[in-house]
Amino acid sequence: MRRYFVAICTLCILSACNNSPQNKGGVEWKEEVAGVWNVSVGTPEKINLLSELNISPKFDAIRKMGEASLPVSQEDISFEVVDGKTYIRFPLEKDEKIFGLGLNFKTVEQRGRIMRLHVDHYTGKDDGRTHTPVPFFVSSRGYGAFINSARYIDTWVGTSVRKDSKNPPVVRDRNTDKNWEAQPYSDNLEFLIPAEGVEVVLFAGPTMLDVVRRFNLYNGGGALPPRWGLGFWHRVPSLFSDKEVNEEVAQFEKRGFPLSVVGLEPGWMSRSYPCTYEWDRVRFPDPDHFVKNLNDQYIKTNVWINPYVSPDGELYDKIEPYTGSHTVWCGIVPDYSMPAAQKIMVEHFEKHQLDKGISGYKMDENDGYDFWLWPDVASFPSGMPAEQMRQIYGSLMQSVTMDMFRKRNTRTYGLVRAGNAGTSSYPYVIYNDYYAHRDFITALINSSFIGVLWTPEVRSSGTGEEWLRRMQTVCFSPVAQLDAWADGTKPWSFPEVEKEVREIAQLRMQLIPYLYTAFADYTFEGTPPMRAMNLEEGYQADTQTEKGVLDATANPYAMAVKREVKDQFMVGPSLLVAPLFAGEKERQVILPQGKWYDFYTGEFAGEGEVITVSPGLSKIPVYVKEGGIIPLWPAVTKVKDEKLPLEVRHYGKTSSSYNLYDDDGKTFDYEKGDFSRIVLKVDVNTNGDKTGKAIIPEGTKVWSFSDYNFRFMTGK
Amino acid sequence: MRRYFVAICTLCILSACNNSPQNKGGVEWKEEVAGVWNVSVGTPEKINLLSELNISPKFDAIRKMGEASLPVSQEDISFEVVDGKTYIRFPLEKDEKIFGLGLNFKTVEQRGRIMRLHVDHYTGKDDGRTHTPVPFFVSSRGYGAFINSARYIDTWVGTSVRKDSKNPPVVRDRNTDKNWEAQPYSDNLEFLIPAEGVEVVLFAGPTMLDVVRRFNLYNGGGALPPRWGLGFWHRVPSLFSDKEVNEEVAQFEKRGFPLSVVGLEPGWMSRSYPCTYEWDRVRFPDPDHFVKNLNDQYIKTNVWINPYVSPDGELYDKIEPYTGSHTVWCGIVPDYSMPAAQKIMVEHFEKHQLDKGISGYKMDENDGYDFWLWPDVASFPSGMPAEQMRQIYGSLMQSVTMDMFRKRNTRTYGLVRAGNAGTSSYPYVIYNDYYAHRDFITALINSSFIGVLWTPEVRSSGTGEEWLRRMQTVCFSPVAQLDAWADGTKPWSFPEVEKEVREIAQLRMQLIPYLYTAFADYTFEGTPPMRAMNLEEGYQADTQTEKGVLDATANPYAMAVKREVKDQFMVGPSLLVAPLFAGEKERQVILPQGKWYDFYTGEFAGEGEVITVSPGLSKIPVYVKEGGIIPLWPAVTKVKDEKLPLEVRHYGKTSSSYNLYDDDGKTFDYEKGDFSRIVLKVDVNTNGDKTGKAIIPEGTKVWSFSDYNFRFMTGK
Repeated sequence: MRRYFVAICTLCILSACNNSPQNKGGVEWKEEVAGVWNVSVGTPEKINLLSELNISPKFDAIRKMGEASLPVSQEDISFEVVDGKTYIRFPLEKDEKIFGLGLNFKTVEQRGRIMRLHVDHYTGKDDGRTHTPVPFFVSSRGYGAFINSARYIDTWVGTSVRKDSKNPPVVRDRNTDKNWEAQPYSDNLEFLIPAEGVEVVLFAGPTMLDVVRRFNLYNGGGALPPRWGLGFWHRVPSLFSDKEVNEEVAQFEKRGFPLSVVGLEPGWMSRSYPCTYEWDRVRFPDPDHFVKNLNDQYIKTNVWINPYVSPDGELYDKIEPYTGSHTVWCGIVPDYSMPAAQKIMVEHFEKHQLDKGISGYKMDENDGYDFWLWPDVASFPSGMPAEQMRQIYGSLMQSVTMDMFRKRNTRTYGLVRAGNAGTSSYPYVIYNDYYAHRDFITALINSSFIGVLWTPEVRSSGTGEEWLRRMQTVCFSPVAQLDAWADGTKPWSFPEVEKEVREIAQLRMQLIPYLYTAFADYTFEGTPPMRAMNLEEGYQADTQTEKGVLDATANPYAMAVKREVKDQFMVGPSLLVAPLFAGEKERQVILPQGKWYDFYTGEFAGEGEVITVSPGLSKIPVYVKEGGIIPLWPAVTKVKDEKLPLEVRHYGKTSSSYNLYDDDGKTFDYEKGDFSRIVLKVDVNTNGDKTGKAIIPEGTKVWSFSDYNFRFMTGK
Repeated sequence: MRRYFVAICTLCILSACNNSPQNKGGVEWKEEVAGVWNVSVGTPEKINLLSELNISPKFDAIRKMGEASLPVSQEDISFEVVDGKTYIRFPLEKDEKIFGLGLNFKTVEQRGRIMRLHVDHYTGKDDGRTHTPVPFFVSSRGYGAFINSARYIDTWVGTSVRKDSKNPPVVRDRNTDKNWEAQPYSDNLEFLIPAEGVEVVLFAGPTMLDVVRRFNLYNGGGALPPRWGLGFWHRVPSLFSDKEVNEEVAQFEKRGFPLSVVGLEPGWMSRSYPCTYEWDRVRFPDPDHFVKNLNDQYIKTNVWINPYVSPDGELYDKIEPYTGSHTVWCGIVPDYSMPAAQKIMVEHFEKHQLDKGISGYKMDENDGYDFWLWPDVASFPSGMPAEQMRQIYGSLMQSVTMDMFRKRNTRTYGLVRAGNAGTSSYPYVIYNDYYAHRDFITALINSSFIGVLWTPEVRSSGTGEEWLRRMQTVCFSPVAQLDAWADGTKPWSFPEVEKEVREIAQLRMQLIPYLYTAFADYTFEGTPPMRAMNLEEGYQADTQTEKGVLDATANPYAMAVKREVKDQFMVGPSLLVAPLFAGEKERQVILPQGKWYDFYTGEFAGEGEVITVSPGLSKIPVYVKEGGIIPLWPAVTKVKDEKLPLEVRHYGKTSSSYNLYDDDGKTFDYEKGDFSRIVLKVDVNTNGDKTGKAIIPEGTKVWSFSDYNFRFMTGK
């Protein structure tokens, strides 16, 4: 909640005892809650990444994690205010790895990188410009740090070398020494924050997952989507009319494809780029009926918007006084940090969308890139500098729209192109127009370090094979969505794989109980539902660095090349997903320590080893951890308010249990305790005989399950 | 000179009457000299792009250009200090074009671009990061502005649109209007300087060339290289010994290839990356004799260095107290802004290079890129922030080494990877490792707007054709250099074009009188020797903007594509050079207004039109303006102190004259008036009969010419 953070800030300002240019001594450390320290450097700014957001840290959940200490000492971290900027330096150990620092698409480990963390459209280079450039890192030593500044933050992650280094690199002569390196070893992680002070929050481990969990809980815990949000989404072409949408929806039904959400693209609006947020009455003569009709079929409607207000709608004159100095695509830019602006926007959104039954938004174009955003010389009526506005605009839009739904005690789930730290509890998934299947997986992995969700949405593909491979990936992501805004593809657009696409979409629906529970763990415990392997215990895969080869033109400094594993990830507690890509017949999968089993057959796959698999086109390789319990619904096509029989699969040979989550799937009542946990338990006796039971304590409310059918996956 | 600029700065600070966050009223305009206005905004910083350099503005030469007024009014330019930063806004008219703003490699016109002007290695994108990101623009309206800040400057060149715009773009609905544009029309050129004030200098035209000339003269006028600097340069492989160098030099002589300068790469030094600046006594046992022996053959020696000091040399302990907090490639970084550091470096350079007869330096690695430079969190003993140090480090190295040679009254000519505003008078040419032939020409064109020199050096090529085409280009550039540091190529490495390569290198030597005069015009009048066509009167070539085609993946916003002419340029007053590129058999050449003639034959080529030419492999298309007079030396292989007969070519049908420059070619005595001008005059009478004469007033000192043979190029 905002008040809370303002209070923290005031404290920082008061405690900044020294305002002089070099106030090494002026840093105050404070343990805020077990395992979380707040450090105030110089004079932190009034506006930071959290100050304008309405979030409530989950201190109780953090406390439950117990006491923990930092593996670095306070003396080893240096803070200075110089030249109007704050310099921060963390020590790095020889084999230490650094993760996080924004939604990167090509790299997972960040040591060796230089970045400017800057909200922007990702354009193919991990240089810090991305949709969610969260200034938070996780160290393999078992701690993390969050630099709470809404400025563009420069960072040198193990690249800068100090004269006074304790572990200086070896001096070599490039003329004659073959071991000369273009990038000598660095034992620093340095930050430059262009402000005369900053709040830094440190999070303890001992594991990296603990660090991430504390960070997520500090930011309010993860979002819990409504249950329907985990079904299958389809976005229709931009200029579709209500009739065309209805015809497409009927096709889904006819062909047996699941569908939970229909997404409308800009054409639902009377004007787009800039926007009116009002219905186009030619394409949608009766929006109330249109949305109600879909709702009656258990299909939610999500609508695209961007932030820029068109002069052609009823909103313009009202919001104009609360907009910035510059226009974007000729639209004015609401200052979402002002309560008056929020009120006007919310009233308009309520009238034209929420009152009509719209379930949520896809909020586009709040990320950049520079060519279609306000410049940093823009001014806003609240007085917030354009730089800070850019860093938190996506977060603000999430906050304001989330609250609008919360007021109705209705959960929403949507898409957004920009966010930052503090948005973990907002039910929005990051997406973009960058479109490389492999890089999508890397982004999914990276999202788990920084408290955001990411969807590798499906759009155009060159072949049926590619279409299916992308579909297989997206069905294991936070939103399983096909986006046909520009090309009008349908799930069945490639007839040669229609059956397989249907199957994977059905599997997505079956997985909803498992995914919903994984999201509950995100909400209550801070555990990301889709995660990097690096957050998994027993996972060991070293990044390989290959010595560079001198090429006078292409590589004159013989720079080394890093190869890292970034194409497999964890979903929930037990599933390991290793997608294949178009053109591939087989791939390698790294199985962490412990036994792993084939998800489809239950066959033993390996343990702590690299396996090579060739699952055929129809399958995406998925593995289950020893003792893994996977609850599956039947292959429904809609998410209704109904109890469904549950198939409870158990993998491997050991006794285990699983804490199935359930609630009404749509309101915020769970926050007041109105939810339940059903323990699914499998016992294996000394003969290897298995028995399963669902433990439902007396008085437990059950919303979604009618029966519990245990299935022991033995691989036979 | 430094004192001069410090005085200006003090004035600015005193005149900043208002320090409040919004001091629109606190701007003071002052006409510094005819056609040049100095504007002080807020509180300009002590350190700027010129404050640390030793340059003397050529006010007398500016005054000679006469009075001139600005085509923009003071009221139309907005200055504000907000959020600790200075915002500046210039108006743009509908068809106004903007040039300059750093050494860009892909674009000439800058309208429509967003850049952060930041010294760096150019890496393939015109985003402001380049070797010389000079914050100076030239407007086609006939004025220019120089933002004198050594900070990273952000600029939006006709991209940002203000709500209060006088010429707002048309609002369009993207849903239905085919004329919707991803980038609406903007009538602003905006700058963000991250400092609480700045000095801005405005330069009047009326032509763009006048603007450039005033800017160059303001920065001390252009550099005048020693005459030998305009001969042919060859850099040998890095680990060559004295013996190998001498053998290679002998090959040049034997094969009849010209050679003026031999460049030694890192291997001449006992240690490189970091550097000792001391000779390697294994590869060069007797450097004194080695250099003297070359000098005796009229071959100058140029040596490679980078700024980073090795612990293995005698310099380290002396310079250590004057170095920054961080190392680069394990070398310490001298703070060249400190007189004490300058003295130590100069004494070392004098002892190991100048006293041994070295003619100059190739100063590498002072540009970046980020991965091998000090980070912006580095500190320096002078207290200069790392950001400012980065922006002027190359300029400082130029200044200090230039002064070292000046003290000996000996001109130098060398290469450097970084510079900025204020370096026009320093005899250094920018180069890099980026290697695209076409982009090299674009950089050569752009260098003429921003007061720097650029060489498209020749290195490896895939084919003899490419080798020859690159060689043809470089022979019309500020330094005609082959750089074989890594691959050991020789001019004759492609036997199939050895003859043609020799011919073009010979032509370079023949052109020295013409080029040397062009450089004198740069020095005394500020006219760039190699220039953009856009600075040529009568040149009209509109940039074509093609409407973008929507592609959901590759171009989802249907962004427009610009095509501009950036592959031909002017050399001296009369030559138009239009290089061909590997794979091309023909090309188009845009001839400005007026008649143009083929350089080789004198044949009429066209006037104010686009011609298509196919000159064959052996020729680079070169055209001469009506009345053009081109003085040519014989095809010498060395630049000696000797008088040579001059061939004076006249092109076209009209009377004309040419002001041939001459001096001793090596000292600074020309600055005291010890130079001469010989008027080469051709009269054409009404019958078309031509007579030529060289007018050498009584008592004129002549250094380089023995005879004047007029040749009237009639094309027959």
